[in-house]
Amino acid sequence: MSELASRRPGRRNRDTAAANPAASPISPGMVGGRYKPLTDAEVLRVHALALQLLSDLGLSQVTPSLEARAVAAGCRVDEAGRLRFPAALVEDVIARSRRSFTLHGVDPAHDIEIGGRRVHTGTGGAAPTIMDFETGRYRESTVADLYDIARLVDRLDNIHWYHRSIVARDAPTILDLDMNTTYACLSGTSKSIAVSYTDGNSVRAVQPMLDAVAGGEGRHRKRPFCTAVCCHVVPPMRFATESCDALEAAVLAGMPILLVSAGQAGATAPAALAGAVAQACAEVLAGLVLCHIIDPDCRGIFAAWPFVSDLRTGAMSGGSGEQALLSAACAQMANFYDLPNSVPAGMTDSKLPDAQSGGEKGYTISLAAQAGATMIHECAGMQGSLMGTSFEGYVLDNDLLGAILRTVKGIDVSEDALSFEVIRDTVMGPGHYLGHPQTFDRMRSDYVYPEIADRRSIGEWEKAGSADARERARERTRAILAKHYPRHVSEATDAAIRSRYNIILPRARMEAGHGAW
Amino acid sequence: MSELASRRPGRRNRDTAAANPAASPISPGMVGGRYKPLTDAEVLRVHALALQLLSDLGLSQVTPSLEARAVAAGCRVDEAGRLRFPAALVEDVIARSRRSFTLHGVDPAHDIEIGGRRVHTGTGGAAPTIMDFETGRYRESTVADLYDIARLVDRLDNIHWYHRSIVARDAPTILDLDMNTTYACLSGTSKSIAVSYTDGNSVRAVQPMLDAVAGGEGRHRKRPFCTAVCCHVVPPMRFATESCDALEAAVLAGMPILLVSAGQAGATAPAALAGAVAQACAEVLAGLVLCHIIDPDCRGIFAAWPFVSDLRTGAMSGGSGEQALLSAACAQMANFYDLPNSVPAGMTDSKLPDAQSGGEKGYTISLAAQAGATMIHECAGMQGSLMGTSFEGYVLDNDLLGAILRTVKGIDVSEDALSFEVIRDTVMGPGHYLGHPQTFDRMRSDYVYPEIADRRSIGEWEKAGSADARERARERTRAILAKHYPRHVSEATDAAIRSRYNIILPRARMEAGHGAW
Repeated sequence: MSELASRRPGRRNRDTAAANPAASPISPGMVGGRYKPLTDAEVLRVHALALQLLSDLGLSQVTPSLEARAVAAGCRVDEAGRLRFPAALVEDVIARSRRSFTLHGVDPAHDIEIGGRRVHTGTGGAAPTIMDFETGRYRESTVADLYDIARLVDRLDNIHWYHRSIVARDAPTILDLDMNTTYACLSGTSKSIAVSYTDGNSVRAVQPMLDAVAGGEGRHRKRPFCTAVCCHVVPPMRFATESCDALEAAVLAGMPILLVSAGQAGATAPAALAGAVAQACAEVLAGLVLCHIIDPDCRGIFAAWPFVSDLRTGAMSGGSGEQALLSAACAQMANFYDLPNSVPAGMTDSKLPDAQSGGEKGYTISLAAQAGATMIHECAGMQGSLMGTSFEGYVLDNDLLGAILRTVKGIDVSEDALSFEVIRDTVMGPGHYLGHPQTFDRMRSDYVYPEIADRRSIGEWEKAGSADARERARERTRAILAKHYPRHVSEATDAAIRSRYNIILPRARMEAGHGAW
Repeated sequence: MSELASRRPGRRNRDTAAANPAASPISPGMVGGRYKPLTDAEVLRVHALALQLLSDLGLSQVTPSLEARAVAAGCRVDEAGRLRFPAALVEDVIARSRRSFTLHGVDPAHDIEIGGRRVHTGTGGAAPTIMDFETGRYRESTVADLYDIARLVDRLDNIHWYHRSIVARDAPTILDLDMNTTYACLSGTSKSIAVSYTDGNSVRAVQPMLDAVAGGEGRHRKRPFCTAVCCHVVPPMRFATESCDALEAAVLAGMPILLVSAGQAGATAPAALAGAVAQACAEVLAGLVLCHIIDPDCRGIFAAWPFVSDLRTGAMSGGSGEQALLSAACAQMANFYDLPNSVPAGMTDSKLPDAQSGGEKGYTISLAAQAGATMIHECAGMQGSLMGTSFEGYVLDNDLLGAILRTVKGIDVSEDALSFEVIRDTVMGPGHYLGHPQTFDRMRSDYVYPEIADRRSIGEWEKAGSADARERARERTRAILAKHYPRHVSEATDAAIRSRYNIILPRARMEAGHGAW
């Protein structure tokens, strides 16, 4: 641990928790996997189909550079120009992959270890719109929104990273978009970030910025805190050429790669859920093979993300029960491969934080978490099946994630927790547990207390004005955003970045009192 | 199946579904159990403690009548007057219990088979207040509310029974309360009902009413559609004397008995969750032994319902992550015993149907369902940790239950669902699945379409007025309640019941156009 890290409050808190593990009931990386949507036999059957798809169908449109490397590694190009992957090669890559690795925060206090069914939750997405905090109407999202969401996330304990959740519509060029997205994320939070880079040029162009924040040239590679989100396929079974360039550049830069296959069942993946899972697994494995061909030491994240279509309209339905099953099954497949992985959950179809939104987030996230997904993306702030986001949504969802992570922690079934003596002494004594020392001890070690969820009596709640959860979350959101301007990037570093890149966010917007909040 | 039943629409629909199983993706009684909060070893350890509590501590304050029968069966009364249960007796009772039985509807179309990890969802509770539909303020609940909720439930497919969810505060005596509760439930729905009878007198007094609706004296016993909810214990480890009288009378009347132990962790059960589960199991098993001593052919439902206290205030927190764990673990214990069972879930702490409410219902119900609870009580309409209810809540929660039940159904991993040929033909052909016959087939067989949840685009939703889920549910609620006045109880039977009992609900209130809706 660096000296800097040891002085950071986040790390101090974690050290205290480690010295006294009873102090906090939940922490990033608790082990899931108690929910298994598929039987072992079903997992094997899906895996066999994924291998068959890779060997018998393969993928089209790989880049020339990667095709040559892949053929050298044992792939072959068939008469239709499709890159076929022999089963042995795919299984070898799975066998040799990292079982886990550290996803670094900008601040080491926010490092997380992904793999081994250790559950983490965070943002993600590419929403083009945001619900304006003041008007409640959706509008195009901006770089300033990206920065403000980053600042919120920085303060919300159950959001373990900030992978960009909106697209800044005020960036004039694609390169500006990628650079400003990275900048806004980095400036607003010291948690791990991720950006979906458009092509290899963007990946190469951003390295000096990442190095500047990491403390000097070549430093980001040593503890990479920026992940490249890479939609390397256009389902079904076709490579996305420009994203494959970005993938190659990112692997060469030592960045973690989120290998996303985002087919939509009924449109670009089979409507039959088992087929959608198998196709997604095949497509992600194809990406993993490419990463390994580039660098056997790569940090690939298995992100089989099949989405659901409402087959009446063709529109995506991220909040459906079918989506909950798809994501949980993909987490189970990835854990069968024992690979660091990600699934999407919390992508409600509702356009605002209402009962529908809460319910859909509740069951989709909890099933993904119980299935042991090591990263659950999109699980904070998203609305409208990923097409929108709302500021207060992050605060609300952070609360929900706390309760769900509590369920991942599970039940302590130690001799002490079984409590025979406590029960005996209570039954033969006072007849209640209110004053028992165990009750006080467990209150701190076993129970999570929410920040937004209201537990008052009906009478107290009515007397206090009958506010709903969204109103309470809005108050908290405004309080954070009015005050919390992180300073983990020094002014000198910021100035150096601004001199090199076309930074859209005015420096004045990064100080309290500019009037927006 | 009776001739009457064959003419009912509910049954017709189910027959159609049976003839063409692909027509409806979900049905009552799909098998759960893919989520296991406890390991097998932990289950055995909790079970061992439950047996130890029954043999080494026993329960106090059994009724004299039941004490004599229990001692004859092998129990003993210790020097402190506590009834001790030898492990062999308890295990014999578990071994000889019904593994499943039919929970009858008033209409056989609503019969459900409980046991074998077959998941069902329905109402329950004893809320003293209801959110007034017009004013949005909580007020005391009434017999008319009970009847109106019954009518709503009658129309909501994913609420499989109507166990009374509120206490009618306008009944002048306890006997009036019990008779009018039964009457209001029976009159408003032809689904299975349940009432918490106060004592043996109430149970005996209601039998003629049940028989009248069943078609004649002794007919209710043949297919009992009214369950007695029996809180036979006052935790920790004490019998509730009057409820034990009610239990005895209900078993003798052939009624199903919901054997509820509702301790509160940190107050009347250990704060350590494992201890709370074990104590609840012991208390329910004690009740099951009493039922078997009365009638070995009894229909007991294992209802270990430990609740959670917010240990900062002592107030109940039904929406917490800890509650989700307790209920799921109790379902797992009951399934280990292979007994028809019930757990509570959906008991949000929120006072209104908002994002908090949706989220808490989402994770608590889905974990209980995935754990394979055969009955999930309280999972529709409840607010404020069971202290309140709201009309539109039933409509909202019915929608949520549909999605959660879809997740219980799981993923079809048949050769057809794996879709190799479909994927191959699509990849080598049109490149998308939109027009594939499989897509149309699976659209009907595999996908649930919600009634309230909004899947429109952001633009369409804003153009239509930006209503939230609660507003949409309110419209639907009003539409049902203005029109749906079930007539499964004939006017002659109703008149006979009214001549015998002090019925509070005016007959005119049971016709459309009385002005309340």
